[in-house]
Amino acid sequence: MLKLNFKNSDISVIGEENGLNIENEFNNYSSQVADIIKSLNQRKDKPGEWLQWMNLGYNEETVWYVKEFASLVDGRFDNILVLGIGGSALGGLAVTEALLKPYWNLLTKEQRKGLPKIFFLDNIDPDSINGILEALDLKKTLVNVITKSGDTAETMSQFMIIRDLLQKELGDDYRKNIVATTDKKMGILRQLADQEGYKIFYVPDDVGGRFSVFSSVGLVPFALVGLDIDQIMNGIKDMDLELKNTDIHQNIAAQGALINFLMDRNKGKNISVLMPYSSRLKYIPSWFSQLWAESLGKGNLGLTPLNAVGATDQHSLLQLFNEGPNNKLITFIRIKNFDTTLEIPKIFEYTGIGYLGGKTVNDLMNAEADSTIVSLIDYKRPSLTITIDKIDEYNIAQLLYMFEVQTAIIGELYNINSFDQPAVEQSKNYIYALMGRAGFDGSVEVLREKLELV
Amino acid sequence: MLKLNFKNSDISVIGEENGLNIENEFNNYSSQVADIIKSLNQRKDKPGEWLQWMNLGYNEETVWYVKEFASLVDGRFDNILVLGIGGSALGGLAVTEALLKPYWNLLTKEQRKGLPKIFFLDNIDPDSINGILEALDLKKTLVNVITKSGDTAETMSQFMIIRDLLQKELGDDYRKNIVATTDKKMGILRQLADQEGYKIFYVPDDVGGRFSVFSSVGLVPFALVGLDIDQIMNGIKDMDLELKNTDIHQNIAAQGALINFLMDRNKGKNISVLMPYSSRLKYIPSWFSQLWAESLGKGNLGLTPLNAVGATDQHSLLQLFNEGPNNKLITFIRIKNFDTTLEIPKIFEYTGIGYLGGKTVNDLMNAEADSTIVSLIDYKRPSLTITIDKIDEYNIAQLLYMFEVQTAIIGELYNINSFDQPAVEQSKNYIYALMGRAGFDGSVEVLREKLELV
Repeated sequence: MLKLNFKNSDISVIGEENGLNIENEFNNYSSQVADIIKSLNQRKDKPGEWLQWMNLGYNEETVWYVKEFASLVDGRFDNILVLGIGGSALGGLAVTEALLKPYWNLLTKEQRKGLPKIFFLDNIDPDSINGILEALDLKKTLVNVITKSGDTAETMSQFMIIRDLLQKELGDDYRKNIVATTDKKMGILRQLADQEGYKIFYVPDDVGGRFSVFSSVGLVPFALVGLDIDQIMNGIKDMDLELKNTDIHQNIAAQGALINFLMDRNKGKNISVLMPYSSRLKYIPSWFSQLWAESLGKGNLGLTPLNAVGATDQHSLLQLFNEGPNNKLITFIRIKNFDTTLEIPKIFEYTGIGYLGGKTVNDLMNAEADSTIVSLIDYKRPSLTITIDKIDEYNIAQLLYMFEVQTAIIGELYNINSFDQPAVEQSKNYIYALMGRAGFDGSVEVLREKLELV
Repeated sequence: MLKLNFKNSDISVIGEENGLNIENEFNNYSSQVADIIKSLNQRKDKPGEWLQWMNLGYNEETVWYVKEFASLVDGRFDNILVLGIGGSALGGLAVTEALLKPYWNLLTKEQRKGLPKIFFLDNIDPDSINGILEALDLKKTLVNVITKSGDTAETMSQFMIIRDLLQKELGDDYRKNIVATTDKKMGILRQLADQEGYKIFYVPDDVGGRFSVFSSVGLVPFALVGLDIDQIMNGIKDMDLELKNTDIHQNIAAQGALINFLMDRNKGKNISVLMPYSSRLKYIPSWFSQLWAESLGKGNLGLTPLNAVGATDQHSLLQLFNEGPNNKLITFIRIKNFDTTLEIPKIFEYTGIGYLGGKTVNDLMNAEADSTIVSLIDYKRPSLTITIDKIDEYNIAQLLYMFEVQTAIIGELYNINSFDQPAVEQSKNYIYALMGRAGFDGSVEVLREKLELV
């Protein structure tokens, strides 16, 4: 059960200059918000609306196939290596980092109960590709190459290098070490998977990369490292039901969307900070950054997402949050129950740190979060707090799905299309031109001219 | 040799609304900037100016002691575990991630040439502390506890837990597994190190945490994992000499400082993005974020630092950079020569990705950076490009020291004190109050009242 506390963004707490009269605003926007929620749920099955991600919680067939595949390869691989970038990597990274035991890839096979390590290669840095090849035994590695279009230059370059090495090491058996996740009907990866005989999973139509975490894009890696994908589905379904509620007073995704929107438009808070108080959730802000940057950054509008982690960044960003420009709305994520309760021993009792003995680091984590929130109030800076009961499949799925719905709602409030990314297309064409892809040489002249300036 | 290219922030490239007339501005500010540089170099030895970090390149005595200690413990430990937060962790993390082989902690002992793995525990998350205790054999771990004040609650809590476990596992010998880095004269850690007999290194006076990476705070871990700290010193010294040049036309730290300052004040670019095109440099923006957030975030002023990594974040943040609010100045870091040249094999020749075969991922990385820069020009968004020859001790030290000097200069341009962090003190007092530290109970009432709102 996710909770959202928005009182610390209210005028009653931080004053009129920086706070919203939230109850009034909920009433002002109640009918517009209700219309948005109704419309999203009505349009979701319509082709071309890019809302199929709202149906992913109900995709039992995919869940079945993914589980079947995971049980088929169970015990055969020491490593899962995901090749993907952007939406093909960030969701998987965020969820596995949250749900696997911390330092998973450093644990022994026994500590991992025989489950594989998992790696996300989401860059084309030659040194780091070379590094992972040195660190992993490819023969014992299942490579999951993920690109919906099938021709993402970064991912397919990685794949060409690794597919070549696999074949050299394993001969014809190399194809058993590859699973492809791509479009059902088209694209080069689809074609290669058929020709070469890789296991294949499909990204459903009308699911954009940044909304694909609960499609096969995420589910395949999750199942391979032993996460409970049924509980993930349950989390999404229950949250989806909650968020179908058209009453803004009852709908936390709509509340978060409206408060972020109004804080930007009326109060100059155009930076949206996401700060979980948990190291395990550290990549959720990275996933969220892509979700908001690509969905909302349009027409000179959009909130700039900023990643943080508590308590760590109290020693980095808090000075700026408190006393820098008052242009941020900070969303905290707090964990009610950590898996571990860790006591600080009663040693050094007669020194200045004796007061810590007998307390737990859980107490300290809570004290840090409380203190940060109160100090923000002192400086009249707005914040929201999301609380989740514990870090597990059910709750993490709820959290991410809630953010997705929130994104769709805030996009409608800005009156923009949240599901395209027009401003990255030209850059892709430039890359193709520079790399000599046929049909793109038209850009080369323009590019060279501009590059001289660089 | 670091290079800074600022043409893509000039009006001649991106127009008057978003660009600066850089040549004119250099001339306008040349005498003010010269005065700032002169003044910093004159004041640096004065107690209380917090400029002693400008002398760290010349601290041969510390280098000698650090190397002696590293050779003394050589081969004795499998792991280095750094306990620290903020400035006691971020520099070490950024530099070791950049300079050690990628995936260092996953390599075998042979691949690491017998050198230890290294971990930075910079949070108090109970699950992740528990996780690292499960992953590491403490008996084979050298614990470097770093806190200048000696009473940082997060670090000392970690230390109390781990010191207690070490004693249980090793008996009286536990002290051989501990090295403390703290203030020379005062603090609880200083006192404990004396009483219990830990090896100790000192953080020099007048070096703040965020400027401490080249003091023993960083040098001890660097030497322990085999980095060449003499080359680090050479990098700093040569850069320091360059940056003593009072002519802004010859001083890249001053150039970067002035352009960032004017972009904020005159052109509304109050977000400063740092985006290295290298996975190995991924934590340098995190280090830089603390440097700028704590140094500049004062009096409702200051630039908000935003972390990015190329090419990865082209698939995450580029849409926002190009088409979102035009409120960012992006600084790229480009590597002229990667350690590795990695060719993409000529396979799949007759498919749509055939054009990639025979190229290198190095080519692709460069094409991606070029394309991003040009697409930013298309959208009239300013950028700077820093180029470094290669990733090694000398160049990384130059880069970080340059950023430190740049921070000192831009602080003077804003006319603020870059070396304090007043807005985090109240939050610390709240933490002490909530944790029951003697003498801080005065805050408890205030706090409880405000917390009811949460």
